[in-house]
Amino acid sequence: MALSTSPYKGARDFYPSDKRKQNYIFKVWREVAESFGYEEYDAPVIEPLELYLAKTSEEIVKEQTYAFEDRGGRQVTLRPEMTPTVSRMVAGKRQELAYPLRWYSIPNLWRYERPQKGRLREHWQLNVDLFGASGVEGDYEIIEVADSIMQRFGANRDSYIIRLNSRKLINDVLREQIGLDETQTAAAIRLIDRQQKMPADQFMQAMNEIVQEKSQSLLDILKCVSLSDLPPELQDHQSTKDLHKLSMLLARSGITNAQFDITLMRGFDYYTDIVFELFDTSPENNRSLFGGGRYDGLVGLFGVEPVPTVGFGMGDVTVGDFLDTHNLMPGLTTPVDLAVIIIGAVYLEAQDAIKQLREAGLKVAVDHTGRKIDKQLKMADKAGYKFVLFIGEQELRTSQFKLKELATGQEQTISLNQVTDVITK
Amino acid sequence: MALSTSPYKGARDFYPSDKRKQNYIFKVWREVAESFGYEEYDAPVIEPLELYLAKTSEEIVKEQTYAFEDRGGRQVTLRPEMTPTVSRMVAGKRQELAYPLRWYSIPNLWRYERPQKGRLREHWQLNVDLFGASGVEGDYEIIEVADSIMQRFGANRDSYIIRLNSRKLINDVLREQIGLDETQTAAAIRLIDRQQKMPADQFMQAMNEIVQEKSQSLLDILKCVSLSDLPPELQDHQSTKDLHKLSMLLARSGITNAQFDITLMRGFDYYTDIVFELFDTSPENNRSLFGGGRYDGLVGLFGVEPVPTVGFGMGDVTVGDFLDTHNLMPGLTTPVDLAVIIIGAVYLEAQDAIKQLREAGLKVAVDHTGRKIDKQLKMADKAGYKFVLFIGEQELRTSQFKLKELATGQEQTISLNQVTDVITK
Repeated sequence: MALSTSPYKGARDFYPSDKRKQNYIFKVWREVAESFGYEEYDAPVIEPLELYLAKTSEEIVKEQTYAFEDRGGRQVTLRPEMTPTVSRMVAGKRQELAYPLRWYSIPNLWRYERPQKGRLREHWQLNVDLFGASGVEGDYEIIEVADSIMQRFGANRDSYIIRLNSRKLINDVLREQIGLDETQTAAAIRLIDRQQKMPADQFMQAMNEIVQEKSQSLLDILKCVSLSDLPPELQDHQSTKDLHKLSMLLARSGITNAQFDITLMRGFDYYTDIVFELFDTSPENNRSLFGGGRYDGLVGLFGVEPVPTVGFGMGDVTVGDFLDTHNLMPGLTTPVDLAVIIIGAVYLEAQDAIKQLREAGLKVAVDHTGRKIDKQLKMADKAGYKFVLFIGEQELRTSQFKLKELATGQEQTISLNQVTDVITK
Repeated sequence: MALSTSPYKGARDFYPSDKRKQNYIFKVWREVAESFGYEEYDAPVIEPLELYLAKTSEEIVKEQTYAFEDRGGRQVTLRPEMTPTVSRMVAGKRQELAYPLRWYSIPNLWRYERPQKGRLREHWQLNVDLFGASGVEGDYEIIEVADSIMQRFGANRDSYIIRLNSRKLINDVLREQIGLDETQTAAAIRLIDRQQKMPADQFMQAMNEIVQEKSQSLLDILKCVSLSDLPPELQDHQSTKDLHKLSMLLARSGITNAQFDITLMRGFDYYTDIVFELFDTSPENNRSLFGGGRYDGLVGLFGVEPVPTVGFGMGDVTVGDFLDTHNLMPGLTTPVDLAVIIIGAVYLEAQDAIKQLREAGLKVAVDHTGRKIDKQLKMADKAGYKFVLFIGEQELRTSQFKLKELATGQEQTISLNQVTDVITK
């Protein structure tokens, strides 16, 4: 029986036309992150499973990891996220590194989920993290990086919104304002996080089970749609002040599409204060795009002095969907500049001319199949090459070569230098 | 107990200084491959285990794969090599693709081995493959790409040699000249492949056990050090002719360090004809660097019409060792152009100036910790930043900013446009 040609379920093959799109996304990610002074790092796709037991969400670790035992008996997993890894690396050189430390990476991440729109088992995710910035200026910078990427992709400001909240604030509200105990608080946070994914009556019922007679107080708080709606006793909370300052900084930068959302939780257990999430506002792709937040406790788990940290992760699948939805993916053609067709038995003699074109910076694909010329032309067209250069005995003797533009059929007989000029112009 | 900060055994963390070196290698790989008309593809790091059962070496599949069962009961593995994957992808679109088809990729590959110099459990490998080129011109092009990469890295021609052989030729020699049966032939090929790794007497003994009374004939053949040493009846063999033509093409391109080596086998079972391997000639790193060859049978395993194919794989670990050994790794510093130090409470007001610098193309890292200036300067120096720009109330009022070069201590007070000029000059 023949082997299957399909990729592993929920993962993608990238044919060159697909890889060009992904590379476009990666290029924008890199350029923007680097313009803010971030430097690239990387790490192995395999990590010890225990790295995720402490602070990644329980659902991911227990149900969604690609965990296995290696040939040496180690419990390992393909990384489901990058945050524990980058925290491990910073902890490993805690004293040697200079802060504020700005790092980014584009790892592939794996989660065993039912593949669906916007969610695959393997995706690539830009991770941008700022270590050693305890003030809200750090949160602001991270959101500014995320927003600048959206802007660089050409997104209209009304095509997405940036929701803001503070895990510390909601935690204190639940504990101190509503009077929940620790277990109830954790359960309520998980429930609010899933609110959008369940019917209203089911949400209400689940909430009543958790908070019982305190339901009405909680519902009142959840109705706040701006910072000024918060009860007076919360106005002096440090996180409220930080959110005010953050909103002001964002507005001053022209980031007018940010808004407070007290129901925004973000799934991970490691967030300690401000969190944010970008949502697509279009009806056909109305979903979370990506997000991040502050996690001041992770580096300290490795037995070193903690480092205040804020960061975000942005996946290539959701971003690709966003670009498609909003018609922002540019038309990307083959990077090959030129196909060379050899006429007659001058393959050997043609090598110097071909080398000269490459040294001039052109990307040159040579057809050395010896097929008929019209077959070679057809293949060059099928491959998407824009130009074909013919090299035969006469061309080599006269140093004048026929260049054909495939789209127009236009031909000109010119020198190799002119060929380079025509193509790079 | 604190979590470990070490990466998975035999795999590497890439701190920014490490990642810069790897990115340099990747950049050279991409530029050269693309100059020959190759286009990038990619695929998931997980593949079904059965993909490797047919033609990857038995040792790799049985002892070195990172194989496991996924949560859906599928037998999968982290890819130990890329060739079966790229063959699968070409087979999947056999009719839609245009030939000659030129593809490259830089996948990470996993093998469970004892980590040692030049061999780790995870490495990245440039894979360059040419599909649909049956003539020796295809083999020539692939070796030319490999050699051009070495040249682009700045390698002296006498720092490496390119060994050439033909699996078809050695196979026919063993079968027809020596008179071995199929099992003996396969065993002899495996033995010759390992010859350099075992003492001479152990090699002789193992060979006697396989080929018995035919040992002397085999030894005579293995003594051939050039194509002209081959017995007259092998001079007309198609692979001998191809090797002659290949040698001539290489010599004409200035690739003078290629030589026939009848003992060169390459480990994989899928090679069908010409194979090649680059060896470092330096005494302190005298080892195989990388290689490749022709494998005309793999695409056909997927139930489609076969495609003649030639390619090679080049790993980042061995190449990195080569560059280090020969002092070819360039000094690579942080890409960050500039650190900004804010003087006084003008963080908000400084944002426009910072934005202007970024829009001019500079990579700007802002220190918003509010620490003392000398502490901020010390950190900028520790981070390896070359310039620091001070932004305070006076600077914003006069639009004249103090730029300090950290290495020299030199300071100048200039406009933001001048800052950009000084740094990009």
